[in-house]
Amino acid sequence: MTLQAPLGGVRDDEGDWPIAAAMINFPGVRRDGSAVQDDPPERWADTIAEVARAGFDHLDPTDSWLRIADLDPSRLDEFVGVVADAGLRMVSLSTSRRSILDPAAGDEHLAYSHRVVDTAAALGLEVVNFGLMQPLTAAQQEALWFWTEPGPRDPDDPAVRARAVGGFRELGRHAESVGVLVSLEMYEDTYLGTADGAVRLIEEIDVPAVGLNPDLGNIVRLHRPIEHWRSMLDTVLPHTNYWHVKNYLRMEDPATGAVLTAPAPLELGVIDYRTAVREAIDAGFRGAFCAEHYGGDGLSVSAANRDYLRRVLPVRNRVQRERTGAAGPGEPR
Amino acid sequence: MTLQAPLGGVRDDEGDWPIAAAMINFPGVRRDGSAVQDDPPERWADTIAEVARAGFDHLDPTDSWLRIADLDPSRLDEFVGVVADAGLRMVSLSTSRRSILDPAAGDEHLAYSHRVVDTAAALGLEVVNFGLMQPLTAAQQEALWFWTEPGPRDPDDPAVRARAVGGFRELGRHAESVGVLVSLEMYEDTYLGTADGAVRLIEEIDVPAVGLNPDLGNIVRLHRPIEHWRSMLDTVLPHTNYWHVKNYLRMEDPATGAVLTAPAPLELGVIDYRTAVREAIDAGFRGAFCAEHYGGDGLSVSAANRDYLRRVLPVRNRVQRERTGAAGPGEPR
Amino acid sequence: MTLQAPLGGVRDDEGDWPIAAAMINFPGVRRDGSAVQDDPPERWADTIAEVARAGFDHLDPTDSWLRIADLDPSRLDEFVGVVADAGLRMVSLSTSRRSILDPAAGDEHLAYSHRVVDTAAALGLEVVNFGLMQPLTAAQQEALWFWTEPGPRDPDDPAVRARAVGGFRELGRHAESVGVLVSLEMYEDTYLGTADGAVRLIEEIDVPAVGLNPDLGNIVRLHRPIEHWRSMLDTVLPHTNYWHVKNYLRMEDPATGAVLTAPAPLELGVIDYRTAVREAIDAGFRGAFCAEHYGGDGLSVSAANRDYLRRVLPVRNRVQRERTGAAGPGEPR
Repeated sequence: MTLQAPLGGVRDDEGDWPIAAAMINFPGVRRDGSAVQDDPPERWADTIAEVARAGFDHLDPTDSWLRIADLDPSRLDEFVGVVADAGLRMVSLSTSRRSILDPAAGDEHLAYSHRVVDTAAALGLEVVNFGLMQPLTAAQQEALWFWTEPGPRDPDDPAVRARAVGGFRELGRHAESVGVLVSLEMYEDTYLGTADGAVRLIEEIDVPAVGLNPDLGNIVRLHRPIEHWRSMLDTVLPHTNYWHVKNYLRMEDPATGAVLTAPAPLELGVIDYRTAVREAIDAGFRGAFCAEHYGGDGLSVSAANRDYLRRVLPVRNRVQRERTGAAGPGEPR
Repeated sequence: MTLQAPLGGVRDDEGDWPIAAAMINFPGVRRDGSAVQDDPPERWADTIAEVARAGFDHLDPTDSWLRIADLDPSRLDEFVGVVADAGLRMVSLSTSRRSILDPAAGDEHLAYSHRVVDTAAALGLEVVNFGLMQPLTAAQQEALWFWTEPGPRDPDDPAVRARAVGGFRELGRHAESVGVLVSLEMYEDTYLGTADGAVRLIEEIDVPAVGLNPDLGNIVRLHRPIEHWRSMLDTVLPHTNYWHVKNYLRMEDPATGAVLTAPAPLELGVIDYRTAVREAIDAGFRGAFCAEHYGGDGLSVSAANRDYLRRVLPVRNRVQRERTGAAGPGEPR
Repeated sequence: MTLQAPLGGVRDDEGDWPIAAAMINFPGVRRDGSAVQDDPPERWADTIAEVARAGFDHLDPTDSWLRIADLDPSRLDEFVGVVADAGLRMVSLSTSRRSILDPAAGDEHLAYSHRVVDTAAALGLEVVNFGLMQPLTAAQQEALWFWTEPGPRDPDDPAVRARAVGGFRELGRHAESVGVLVSLEMYEDTYLGTADGAVRLIEEIDVPAVGLNPDLGNIVRLHRPIEHWRSMLDTVLPHTNYWHVKNYLRMEDPATGAVLTAPAPLELGVIDYRTAVREAIDAGFRGAFCAEHYGGDGLSVSAANRDYLRRVLPVRNRVQRERTGAAGPGEPR
């Protein structure tokens, strides 16, 4: 088995980067109490059709919507069929708030994460995304924007940290053995909460298949002082193998220390994704992207984010597509 | 006479929802002191041409721009001709800041409102929009955004409230008798200022032709704690028969209690109109929309709001249009 | 020599206004320490190709990127060739932070400004842009948005002010003698920091070729009380001969005095450029525009700003283009 480079992906400069829709805008439990996990395939198809209508050709079945790793084989087949029927493809599988350090459910999450790796391998996916964020607190759930309230914090405890390293190493070796990459998502107040901390964790894990997802939107939206996004990106790029992209307006008033943030399209927020993407590609990043947006109509803005990303991806890629007459969905026509 | 359902409108699922331009971005009195009310038709035509160039096919002649109910018959004919010549149609007529409870001008406004109903009937319009908001205070006029200063408040006085109920009942019965719907606009600090309060008022009025305009933008822009837009929408949807749509960025800092808002396109603001519109249609809403935006270039953003709305209106509607080969102005091409 | 009108430009109503890309999003010194000033033409070409790909047909070689007035003749020829090869044209040349009042480098900047005038004349450019803003302070450089920290201030000193008047008069006469306009950029805390102050300075300079660049974005982004943009525009329009356009979200909370701002596209910010542009054209403005945006992906938003501007430029202009079958790059298709 030829393992892909730590920077992720098999595509070369001329390839077309996959830009997947995250499913974070679709809750796993509906207001009537019904769970997507128990849906007949027709209901999955409705949701996936909405994603396809928004112009996506790739989907990341984020597990806050549906845990495909917990479907039995015939149901998983049905799901795969639904995705294919909608003309969509999958290259990644993101988990959300399934920390292997969760005080209540950490062991369960570790076992589940192994199933996620196996499912990714079975479906031929390139990468799975894990993180250390835990379920929202009550205050976070009640807030207009959950990131304005403090969430759970990984403790400053070497024994706990060792469990994180050990768990991810175990998952990474498993993933490596089946030809799948593991991407760890940056998220505040976890061991993956700063650029330096995230890189230290990756180095301690020390498995080539394990890299980072520099989801800098998670950081720049915080109502507190933060490291500049560009400095964070410099630090984490050499380890990046998958990328959740989202952006925020960020306002700071030095006179009072006030910080206020709001969700914004990739093109309009504080992170300059034109520069970020160029530097990533220059550094060798060949992984997949996943377009996210919280707040308001997340699917529409995620679609705009995908189109924007296609416009700023390297021109060699675009020229190639133009030559073959195939325009990406977000290309200027 | 067959009165339309309380949810408004005559169109069915396959119909094309009218999305009107509000005229709120065009002041009724110009900086040189001249009044639109006194304009020759050619000047009306200039303004309406600008609306048509922005891609609208429907117009709500909001009375902050022009009180068409106060035009004499020959002038009204001229106005109707100007609108038709521009290729625009009207299905609604919105009043603004003409509260029948206005301490100084309430009776006058009630009489005017009856003329509005008659004018709507004469022109074959579907719905008229009334509200209880009063003229801006001096502090509101001086503020960058008027909603950041407190405005007039309907008193906690049963006698005044009874006048509101009585006046709207009278207007509703008049409207019903001529085949027109009445929509009451949600607006803070009036008897229509909360979802529960608005529904209570509708129930007290108790005339099927009288429903609500859930102009939630009026609420989510306030610099104070508010009910979540989705909870408000749940409450008012069963009574909704017309809809002023606009959106805002809303930032809250739980640590300090600070709230700051700014006008935003429908697609980018805190209200998820994709979800809101779907739930309204599912609940049976078939009324007209009116695209609004305050702040900066209101007409351009209203046009973007119209295009966005067409993208998220139910797909059955869109599929139908695609089949007939007619693409809506906001359709992805 | 026929000097152009003080309002700038040679185009008439039917002409196509040039809308240049500013080069403010491209630093003059790269992170590796290399200077654009020393680049071989191929590297300039890479950057200019990126601007062309963003859809621009005009370029303002802002001197924070490259001081073309300091290139020797053969290098200047190379630069002109690179611009032409990319299909771009130049009509303006903006300087940035080269105040002739700079305590350390004022005299040097005056000499440089004369070279800028000569270079503009040699290349047949219409206008050069000067200002009184000085280099960012350390606190400004460290701030997320530099305008949230106070910068250098022109002193309340008649002798210093007289030097500004004298210097700009000298530059204006020079420019006039070679058929070039001088535009002075509004910028806070300089003698060009308020609308009234800017007009007073222009009147004291008293040279027809010297006018104003009403870069109101510089003012509306400040975290302090400001004059309303429309009142500022009224004051400065009669003297406007070039226009850096950019926009900001601006939020004010009267209850606490808090002001927060963030960069926004022209269409979405607090300045209504539809109205501003119409009033400028009505007042006789025929100068060039320069599309700017700080924050996030400045080039992409500048491109959107250009497209927006084309949509709101007077319709006579657009109708003309439609008749000839040539659609501007930002025209609705």
